[in-house]
Amino acid sequence: MADPAPDDSGPPAFPVPTMPVPPVSVVGLGQLGGSLAAALAAGGRPVSGWDVDPAARDAAADHGVRVTRELTGVVVLAVPLPVMAGALEGLRVDPGATVTDLGSVKVPVLDALGAALGDRYVGGHPMCGTERSGPESVDPALFTGARWALCLEPGTDLRRWLRVAEIALAVGAEVVPVTAAEHDDAVAAISAVPHLLAAALAAAAGQAGPLALSLAAGSYRDATRVIASDPAFVTALVEGNAAPAAAALARVRDQLDRPWPDLVADGHAVRTATAGRRPVRVPLERAALLSLGRSGGAVTRRLAAFVEGWVPEQA
Amino acid sequence: MADPAPDDSGPPAFPVPTMPVPPVSVVGLGQLGGSLAAALAAGGRPVSGWDVDPAARDAAADHGVRVTRELTGVVVLAVPLPVMAGALEGLRVDPGATVTDLGSVKVPVLDALGAALGDRYVGGHPMCGTERSGPESVDPALFTGARWALCLEPGTDLRRWLRVAEIALAVGAEVVPVTAAEHDDAVAAISAVPHLLAAALAAAAGQAGPLALSLAAGSYRDATRVIASDPAFVTALVEGNAAPAAAALARVRDQLDRPWPDLVADGHAVRTATAGRRPVRVPLERAALLSLGRSGGAVTRRLAAFVEGWVPEQA
Repeated sequence: MADPAPDDSGPPAFPVPTMPVPPVSVVGLGQLGGSLAAALAAGGRPVSGWDVDPAARDAAADHGVRVTRELTGVVVLAVPLPVMAGALEGLRVDPGATVTDLGSVKVPVLDALGAALGDRYVGGHPMCGTERSGPESVDPALFTGARWALCLEPGTDLRRWLRVAEIALAVGAEVVPVTAAEHDDAVAAISAVPHLLAAALAAAAGQAGPLALSLAAGSYRDATRVIASDPAFVTALVEGNAAPAAAALARVRDQLDRPWPDLVADGHAVRTATAGRRPVRVPLERAALLSLGRSGGAVTRRLAAFVEGWVPEQA
Repeated sequence: MADPAPDDSGPPAFPVPTMPVPPVSVVGLGQLGGSLAAALAAGGRPVSGWDVDPAARDAAADHGVRVTRELTGVVVLAVPLPVMAGALEGLRVDPGATVTDLGSVKVPVLDALGAALGDRYVGGHPMCGTERSGPESVDPALFTGARWALCLEPGTDLRRWLRVAEIALAVGAEVVPVTAAEHDDAVAAISAVPHLLAAALAAAAGQAGPLALSLAAGSYRDATRVIASDPAFVTALVEGNAAPAAAALARVRDQLDRPWPDLVADGHAVRTATAGRRPVRVPLERAALLSLGRSGGAVTRRLAAFVEGWVPEQA
């Protein structure tokens, strides 16, 4: 497939801190897409966008987003997982555009979009968002400090990957290079399972009755916050990542079989562990980038022939 | 046992909005005890207190608490569960004093203190506190709007129960009348189990590896917050309430066996249910007060011959 005007075709001998950046088109202007579009527009970048909901289009326009069905540059699909595969229907996409998405699972989206888009598709998942949804929950600061998983499959075009990475970095996120399968296993443990546990905890508290719910305080409230999210979103999150989620849930069940004092000690140790960050430079090469992600590190800055980032100390 | 100068020996024919209140002595001046003492002192009430830690005593003195080993009026035991039974050792307690506690389980504390103190003991548990601990976490507003479970056993002296309830109301809490056994079953579901799930989730995420922990965001962070608490506190909380906690955990495991879309829908419904409050007046009588608690209601004001409170609508 044609790859128009790559901006990094050769490694210069010196760092290039600013580079020409492509425009961004965001499809789906709810909390994630709307926040991304607003953050980029606030940074002075040309951003266009589309949403099936006129109210979301109007809200985005108020944030400086040009509303159009013509998509170009880097096209960001920020629609719910169940409609991801058809997100581009009825829209005009520049044939050279790079397409990424913000979906919370990656293998199914890769399966759905990769066949049609080939190496123009780069899967992504910013690890942020709240239980709120819709254009009224748009927050241009949503991505500041967040990790943004970005998929590097064997067939991924590294130049396109870097264009998407640059967008994530531009809104204050740190980029975690992953494969789609690694991503889905990891988020099963830290996202799908917390949603399932929250649902089970709330449902069981409901069984326990009104006195229990009346005494519920901070520990219950925090532990169940995520199940206040739209059930359709949560169901897509867990059902769309069913096998990794089931495996991760089985690990939690095994943990619950341990003697409680041991379980409490280990859980406390993991939750409160703090690792320093060791700065690293990583060449623009798939294996090195994936190794950074696997070690728990992230990319914080893209230079010409390498990226800067960090890994946890002692990792 | 002698009961000096009850302040409510006969029901007057009209409401008595203010009543003479006994002094309060707080044993243990960490987050809960220190916050209670500071809140009462800020309200102009005579408050004394003691802690084995000189730093906690000094911090309480700064909040207007008189530091002494002489305990009188209503004595509040705000020490960790493992040392609750010996909390009064080395201290001088007025023989007419009412003794209450803030421990997170009630049957074991009733067993430990009820034998020695008889009807002078009234078990309590304010449903607040954070994962922080020690005098630096003292917050006089900690109890505002919190539920405060207060045990009404068959042998409880209702006049002493009301003296403790008055203290809870004075610092902005709402009083939930319960039996110790009902309390322990309820908090197993909404406190012990969330702590165990948080520990298992964190431990399993640790197993999943550094990539998973690096991608962990809001859902993991909130779901594991409570396991950042002192492990000794958490272990006492779950081991001290072992049978109810095991039963409540079994209910959560059963929920996790359900089809995920059903589980998500039910958990969401429980978590987001909002009931209005219907004001009620309840006579000062054990069965009526316990019925209020079982229906999910709480006491908000004590009058002469009854209490005012509320129950959830449609309850």
